[in-house]
Amino acid sequence: MIMQQEFKLSDILAFEQRYRATLINSLGGFKSLVLIGTVNPTGKTNLAVFNSLFHLGANPPLFGFIVRPDSSDRHTLSNILSTLEFTVNHVHENFYKQAHQTSARYNASTSEFDSTGLTPEYRGGHTAPFVKESKIQIAADFVRKVDLIENGTSLIIAQIKSISVPQDCLLTDGFVDLEKAGSLTCSGLDSYHSTKKIARLTYAKPNTPLSEIHKPK
Amino acid sequence: MIMQQEFKLSDILAFEQRYRATLINSLGGFKSLVLIGTVNPTGKTNLAVFNSLFHLGANPPLFGFIVRPDSSDRHTLSNILSTLEFTVNHVHENFYKQAHQTSARYNASTSEFDSTGLTPEYRGGHTAPFVKESKIQIAADFVRKVDLIENGTSLIIAQIKSISVPQDCLLTDGFVDLEKAGSLTCSGLDSYHSTKKIARLTYAKPNTPLSEIHKPK
Repeated sequence: MIMQQEFKLSDILAFEQRYRATLINSLGGFKSLVLIGTVNPTGKTNLAVFNSLFHLGANPPLFGFIVRPDSSDRHTLSNILSTLEFTVNHVHENFYKQAHQTSARYNASTSEFDSTGLTPEYRGGHTAPFVKESKIQIAADFVRKVDLIENGTSLIIAQIKSISVPQDCLLTDGFVDLEKAGSLTCSGLDSYHSTKKIARLTYAKPNTPLSEIHKPK
Repeated sequence: MIMQQEFKLSDILAFEQRYRATLINSLGGFKSLVLIGTVNPTGKTNLAVFNSLFHLGANPPLFGFIVRPDSSDRHTLSNILSTLEFTVNHVHENFYKQAHQTSARYNASTSEFDSTGLTPEYRGGHTAPFVKESKIQIAADFVRKVDLIENGTSLIIAQIKSISVPQDCLLTDGFVDLEKAGSLTCSGLDSYHSTKKIARLTYAKPNTPLSEIHKPK
């Protein structure tokens, strides 16, 4: 019998800062793992790893993510606010170390494409660079920044302008098989994981009997 | 050579509604998978699956998630606004079908605990029920609702009040090993996945040479 460890808010607030950051960053579950590509008005590229991307809606196609203005996110934010566009690129096992490395605090004159060896790709009249190594790419337009007074972070709301996915990963119902594409997930601040599919389930209906829900797969 | 399939915004907007929802929900990558437990002022419990949870900050410990007022999320939202608290519970392989089933549109008089056979657990003076079957549980206090005018969804900002994790999954640096706990991730609207750890990486520093980043694991 494994015991549960419990912590109250007062315990959490009393933890050493790095311990607390590692703990709290773990709790939300597995996360989206993407590289966001931007360019500044003089053409200097920037690339940064994010793990807070979330779906907002399909019609229009909207998503959001969180930026911390005092971190390595700051060049991404200033570039998006200047140019009003960016790219989102899934991360695969053959370049997850390079993706992680973009979280280092490079100065604004260093492009993370250069410092990691990832390849910028320009396509479709979008000025922000894609990551050529990524199989699932999104070009996005900035919609709005919502400042969160609680801790100085900001929510960036964006609209999808175009997408690129491998033909053999796009199923007939519109589902994109991220596992087949080799997209990774992450947990905490620094843990990288591949996935193993359990099942896709059908649309849930309220009249389903308990015996049906509990049936082994 | 696998070809890439590209779609522009105009293509996406022209897709049949369900195809578009399935496609766009897939694009953001793997997602957090949690059950949110609430109770209304008369004590009726509610349980709903969410996949938009994201980290906001560690000090104070804050997170956010997105609710769609016109969906099965609506009872969760009204309960949180009434009672100002809720629980977050990770989902494991032995009850992912029950978790999925909570997305059915039950009426307000039906508790998803009853309709799925999951077990409500009350602890620590928190009025909202935990899911007893879940190994990673968070008690949370409502902080603020931010309405997103772009599509009528809302961001719920919440603060962690207490947490419970298995002792053998809590590492000495504060990292919670979600894979060891058996927490699942999801993609799209209905695809459930376990994970396989690749590596934890060290804090990235800007002076790391390319040869070090590209070194095989």
